[in-house]
Amino acid sequence: MPEHSTLFLVSDRTGITVESLVRTLLTQFDQAPVQRVVRPFCDDADKIARVEAEIDAAAEADGRPPLVYSSLVDLDLRARLKRSRGRVFDIFDLFLPALSEALHQPSIEHVGLAHGIADYKDYDQRVEAVNFALAYDDGARLRGLEEADLILVGVSRCGKTPTCLYLAMQYKVRAANFPLTEDDFLEGRLPEPLRPHRERLYGLIISPERLHQIREERRPGSTYASLAQCRRELSAAEALYRAERIPFIDSTNLSIEELAIEIMQQVGMERPW
Amino acid sequence: MPEHSTLFLVSDRTGITVESLVRTLLTQFDQAPVQRVVRPFCDDADKIARVEAEIDAAAEADGRPPLVYSSLVDLDLRARLKRSRGRVFDIFDLFLPALSEALHQPSIEHVGLAHGIADYKDYDQRVEAVNFALAYDDGARLRGLEEADLILVGVSRCGKTPTCLYLAMQYKVRAANFPLTEDDFLEGRLPEPLRPHRERLYGLIISPERLHQIREERRPGSTYASLAQCRRELSAAEALYRAERIPFIDSTNLSIEELAIEIMQQVGMERPW
Repeated sequence: MPEHSTLFLVSDRTGITVESLVRTLLTQFDQAPVQRVVRPFCDDADKIARVEAEIDAAAEADGRPPLVYSSLVDLDLRARLKRSRGRVFDIFDLFLPALSEALHQPSIEHVGLAHGIADYKDYDQRVEAVNFALAYDDGARLRGLEEADLILVGVSRCGKTPTCLYLAMQYKVRAANFPLTEDDFLEGRLPEPLRPHRERLYGLIISPERLHQIREERRPGSTYASLAQCRRELSAAEALYRAERIPFIDSTNLSIEELAIEIMQQVGMERPW
Repeated sequence: MPEHSTLFLVSDRTGITVESLVRTLLTQFDQAPVQRVVRPFCDDADKIARVEAEIDAAAEADGRPPLVYSSLVDLDLRARLKRSRGRVFDIFDLFLPALSEALHQPSIEHVGLAHGIADYKDYDQRVEAVNFALAYDDGARLRGLEEADLILVGVSRCGKTPTCLYLAMQYKVRAANFPLTEDDFLEGRLPEPLRPHRERLYGLIISPERLHQIREERRPGSTYASLAQCRRELSAAEALYRAERIPFIDSTNLSIEELAIEIMQQVGMERPW
């Protein structure tokens, strides 16, 4: 009998929701020996039949029923999946009845498709925000900075770029970022181009050890990467934030998602849907 | 009595999982009149007490119990939230017992924190993939293209950049993208720099009308944006994919996520965790 349990993630669309769910659940187990099988876009009987066969084969091989996390809108497909030898937890099964009751509406029970122009609008806004983040990455452009919802500042390699891109991609936030350099610290005040936008600035810091580690990957043995240099820049950045009353956050132990959401929360930005 | 229902999304971390869940559920209702209240990072009794008060106030105002979707690891906080006047669906409540049983392990019941170096590794890989995508955006760099896991090709504005960035950010895929231009079509064969990497190429197409719409936003009234030009480029791109046996996908009605996951699926790329 194998040591692992098999978890199936089955969806008629991307499976991102069940992926997020399973990922969250697994944070609650240390070193859980699981084998994940991800099967997105299972939107017809043939595809479900193939997954069913895989589930049954895993049940046989594992000597126990696999757990199956699914999001299948179609009632027949859901019923079909339940005939497998897995223990099926379907998100719609579990959550739709109460929501339907609360909304005084039956659920539409068909796979969500692009709703024409509405979805194009969503796509366009996200792409526009991503393009904005790219155009204003690393202080690349200064004109138009007043159109930013948020401007992240910080020393090189403290996490500005991925955070801006995540904010843009996921939440349509127009986020620019601007690097703080040695020269700014010598001057001891905000770089000139940032001064008119003070109320939209947000600072990042990070531990010197972690920054050193990150910069070493990039330029091993350089002054830029040295622990002394990292310490110097970071303490100057923090002093600047305090002097200029710019809110800031320590990114050392945060994932990109946590950083993005913590910042939105702190500046009182609603998550757009 | 207000027309909407209030949905609370409460988490001790980012709340991304409950957000994804609620988003998925709401695809099943046309124009659901809901008011969403998102409360991430509720990781102590005070924060939960504040959310509880908000839930009770909404219950009063709506004249019915709000639905509360939560992911709270701490048992006391979970119990506390349930004392509110909302109907609470907690993800850990609903899914952990079966998973715990299947894994023959109790759940650890504390908020997932950075696991030291392991999480840094994850962060670094994601950032590295994002930097790769940025460095190889829009054919910006040719040297090192052999390090790409995937190279997206297509005409200007068909969705290459956001797809590459999403793949990098979410799945640590090192995705480059390369634009196909008029000159390539005149030659009728793959651009020289792409030829050694044929097996990692993936093509995008899009409907001419949609491309026209996207380009018009960017450069209204230009030849570049004209429907005739869009048609010409797209039919040349598709002919090229067919002649060179490059797999391709129509991005017209797909979200960034769907596009990314469909491509990973089709090229047989596992989703890294």
